[in-house]
Amino acid sequence: MKVAFIGLGSMGMPMAANLARAGHDLTVWNRSRKTPEGFEGKEPPVAGSIAEAVRDAEAVVTMLANDQAVTEVVHGGLLDNLRQGAVHLSMSTLSVAAARTLAEEHAKKGRDYVAAPVFGRPEMAAAAKLWIVLAGPARGVATIRPLLDALGRGVSEFGEEPWKANLVKLGNNFMLTAMIETLGETFALMRKAGIPPKDFLAAINNLFQSPVYQNYGTMIADGQHEAGFKMSLGLKDVRLALAAADELHVPMPFASVARDNMVEAVATGGADKDWSYLARVVQDRAGLD
Amino acid sequence: MKVAFIGLGSMGMPMAANLARAGHDLTVWNRSRKTPEGFEGKEPPVAGSIAEAVRDAEAVVTMLANDQAVTEVVHGGLLDNLRQGAVHLSMSTLSVAAARTLAEEHAKKGRDYVAAPVFGRPEMAAAAKLWIVLAGPARGVATIRPLLDALGRGVSEFGEEPWKANLVKLGNNFMLTAMIETLGETFALMRKAGIPPKDFLAAINNLFQSPVYQNYGTMIADGQHEAGFKMSLGLKDVRLALAAADELHVPMPFASVARDNMVEAVATGGADKDWSYLARVVQDRAGLD
Amino acid sequence: MKVAFIGLGSMGMPMAANLARAGHDLTVWNRSRKTPEGFEGKEPPVAGSIAEAVRDAEAVVTMLANDQAVTEVVHGGLLDNLRQGAVHLSMSTLSVAAARTLAEEHAKKGRDYVAAPVFGRPEMAAAAKLWIVLAGPARGVATIRPLLDALGRGVSEFGEEPWKANLVKLGNNFMLTAMIETLGETFALMRKAGIPPKDFLAAINNLFQSPVYQNYGTMIADGQHEAGFKMSLGLKDVRLALAAADELHVPMPFASVARDNMVEAVATGGADKDWSYLARVVQDRAGLD
Amino acid sequence: MKVAFIGLGSMGMPMAANLARAGHDLTVWNRSRKTPEGFEGKEPPVAGSIAEAVRDAEAVVTMLANDQAVTEVVHGGLLDNLRQGAVHLSMSTLSVAAARTLAEEHAKKGRDYVAAPVFGRPEMAAAAKLWIVLAGPARGVATIRPLLDALGRGVSEFGEEPWKANLVKLGNNFMLTAMIETLGETFALMRKAGIPPKDFLAAINNLFQSPVYQNYGTMIADGQHEAGFKMSLGLKDVRLALAAADELHVPMPFASVARDNMVEAVATGGADKDWSYLARVVQDRAGLD
Repeated sequence: MKVAFIGLGSMGMPMAANLARAGHDLTVWNRSRKTPEGFEGKEPPVAGSIAEAVRDAEAVVTMLANDQAVTEVVHGGLLDNLRQGAVHLSMSTLSVAAARTLAEEHAKKGRDYVAAPVFGRPEMAAAAKLWIVLAGPARGVATIRPLLDALGRGVSEFGEEPWKANLVKLGNNFMLTAMIETLGETFALMRKAGIPPKDFLAAINNLFQSPVYQNYGTMIADGQHEAGFKMSLGLKDVRLALAAADELHVPMPFASVARDNMVEAVATGGADKDWSYLARVVQDRAGLD
Repeated sequence: MKVAFIGLGSMGMPMAANLARAGHDLTVWNRSRKTPEGFEGKEPPVAGSIAEAVRDAEAVVTMLANDQAVTEVVHGGLLDNLRQGAVHLSMSTLSVAAARTLAEEHAKKGRDYVAAPVFGRPEMAAAAKLWIVLAGPARGVATIRPLLDALGRGVSEFGEEPWKANLVKLGNNFMLTAMIETLGETFALMRKAGIPPKDFLAAINNLFQSPVYQNYGTMIADGQHEAGFKMSLGLKDVRLALAAADELHVPMPFASVARDNMVEAVATGGADKDWSYLARVVQDRAGLD
Repeated sequence: MKVAFIGLGSMGMPMAANLARAGHDLTVWNRSRKTPEGFEGKEPPVAGSIAEAVRDAEAVVTMLANDQAVTEVVHGGLLDNLRQGAVHLSMSTLSVAAARTLAEEHAKKGRDYVAAPVFGRPEMAAAAKLWIVLAGPARGVATIRPLLDALGRGVSEFGEEPWKANLVKLGNNFMLTAMIETLGETFALMRKAGIPPKDFLAAINNLFQSPVYQNYGTMIADGQHEAGFKMSLGLKDVRLALAAADELHVPMPFASVARDNMVEAVATGGADKDWSYLARVVQDRAGLD
Repeated sequence: MKVAFIGLGSMGMPMAANLARAGHDLTVWNRSRKTPEGFEGKEPPVAGSIAEAVRDAEAVVTMLANDQAVTEVVHGGLLDNLRQGAVHLSMSTLSVAAARTLAEEHAKKGRDYVAAPVFGRPEMAAAAKLWIVLAGPARGVATIRPLLDALGRGVSEFGEEPWKANLVKLGNNFMLTAMIETLGETFALMRKAGIPPKDFLAAINNLFQSPVYQNYGTMIADGQHEAGFKMSLGLKDVRLALAAADELHVPMPFASVARDNMVEAVATGGADKDWSYLARVVQDRAGLD
């Protein structure tokens, strides 16, 4: 399929490479003009503009940092140049509000907007092991479906309204944030008692049996917080979950606590660390270093 | 091995039955004089007193509701009648403070006190699939080790100080409480958006891959809160985790939020429901019913 | 002075009446075309449009519900018709972001924008006992200064940047919200112990000696929550304080707790009650009715 | 009146001096054998033991740090030597549980136990401007009433059950703690916006008009945290308020947040600072120094 891929960040680059490897005919575009990497001889052409990138595409995939970046791309050439029948597959983590607005704008122009945010970090993107959360109009979904196999290991579908996929993604990221905070608090308690966090982690994972607990727990126990997913982006997602909760009238006290601790992380120099650094802030508050 | 088993509640009864089935020579005692159930023809004798139960035992297992119950049993005949070389295997979920006191009292009398709280609900106790957290003096641990295979599927060891096993158990129960609160908040958000919690749960479990998330998530999505582990006991454990955190100077804001919501659960009639009912309280606060 | 007054709500109406009574030459405008009340024979003319209202004014006072209402008025005729040398005195409680944008828009047109949000409820507005928080360019402040005496009992000044006055106002409203939550929690504790909240209030006011504690404490003890200041507006202000805190990287856990409880209040039917109803929600959570 | 005064700390010493100055016939006792100070020529005799101190007294006043100190004094000679008709006036800030136990123990011996915790810091104690919260059996209250004028500026009475006075005191201290946390959060917000906390404080005190806000606000704005009332004692009182709330089933999320932040204060070296240092911790979390 002819695919335009916009956004070659730490997630987008390996996702684009996987699409190329699966035989799709890619053109890429990135604001900062990155050179494609990791395509193993299938390097795609780099378009000189958004318009050029999307003009001939059957599907345009966007994988960008936030609402603003996607909106700028959509208004900066994507929507005006998306041809009849082509689909915008929007895989970024966006706010519910932005997802609604984008869907309406596309609908007005007669174009299909499909939301497909993903669960997984860069290494899972590279291994095509993302889990994809999908929502959008049936026709658009049918069009882009062939792309999904190259990107992930499975799909959960949430109907025709794209924003619902975004809310599910925000809900999932909140759950991960809550897990990180929980690990931070518990590890602080264990460390102050002289119990090594890794021993504690090994014990509880016999109950939880979750690779996510295992991976994040190990990062936190090792004090390993090189950014796979930045604190500033993690904070953004909790903020968006709280904004959705506010609009829908849902008290979320755990999300509020996590937000305050992530704000502390950002205020004290952790904006560019991995969001798992939240667990470090929690331990610092106990006087541990 | 000659074993006295004290405490035939929803956890203790199937644990005792498993010990009998494994060929150990049991005597049981329970404050409320329950008739042994589920022993499949290996019903043990019921002692008339704690003293009588423990007198000939090589190991005495206690599985009781709280600090007070264990303390009453220990002071009500257990410690005075525990013979030389016999071990008290204390499997209840106790406070760090009580664990320390009990260990000292046994040490003064020259008896070994081994803490072995477990991860798992009654159905896991029945299936001998508990995970056992062990700490205590080496000699005592060696004595009771033959019992562990009959009770669980594995053991994590935390050295010679019994209270450390209790702290690990409290840490684990806090983590489960935090998971329940997290599920409650997220499900409330999804329900208000018209997304069925089970669909959300199915999606996120592709990431978490945890049987605990799956089981509790299903209970909560189904509004199924028949007590496997009572709210009042769950609240007790969070209280004990916070008490340990206070003593060790560890801020635990998630534990504090959970505590307040569990207090609300108890204040509004949920003391005897399963602790997963915490997720119900969270949803009620969003105006859901 | 020739004054256009825009916004005749529960605060604006008595404020406008006080300006008329002090001899200012008023024209009024309100979106919903309210008839002026309480002017004691000095009823001002009602303009047919915003443009008509502001055209001859030396000062335009706006007292509206939120960012959106002020922005609509400013873009709907105020700014285009404000004559050279005239000042926009913006007395609403606005977000820091909106205050910044409005100040810039006025500056571009060469008009002075002065922020002057107030402390006080409708009965204090009627008694000209508001406290005024002022910030804006010196020339504009000098122009509107003669109006302030008719509206309040004093002024605190915060320099030339209007948004700072709005932040001070948001900070003050957060402090009142925190006081309400605090009273709610403490009254719940006292009621469950059989101690009448009014007796408790009488005792602590010997220490606090604050009319605000006395007034809100009495409303809450009496379960008197007829709206002087609506919950939905109080929630909006806490949301704006948290938005400012997020931008400035300030953790505000009390604001977060209050926000969640106010969201609960709105979710369970309290949006149009007085914001002191927050203390009711807190007591309900304790199982009190 | 013949009075034994036990506990010559920063509160007890000036209180005892005021009783002596008012003409009462004092004997004092203090665990650490302090020399009476500030009695202006009316230095009382220092008893060699608790028994000796209380033997002839019509009233015994205790002003000690916590439950344990009072319990040790009561069991260490006070109760056994309190003569028929004499009253124990217990002015310390105690837990509800301890207050109940002490009242029962005195009642069994036929002695009256009156609780009279106070509002006010050492300088108010010295100026006899404490506010006294009183509860206890009518006969005992009648006996000690002549002492109250010398100690404070007024009394609030809460019936015959002593623990109710203690709960009121704990409620009041929670309210002060909540005020300190609130000031800390708001000052952090203002400082990050370039607004001097003292300017903000001056503005809001036109609304609050409370000497307590003024005094604590000034201490916090000045970063002045020399101990009048130690953080470790303030934390103890919040802990006791939460313990009472737990027993009575009252969620107190503000108390929980304050507790966690005070635990952080203690964990990071602030145990011996004034409890207003809580506001410093809150500002540190925003990256301020």
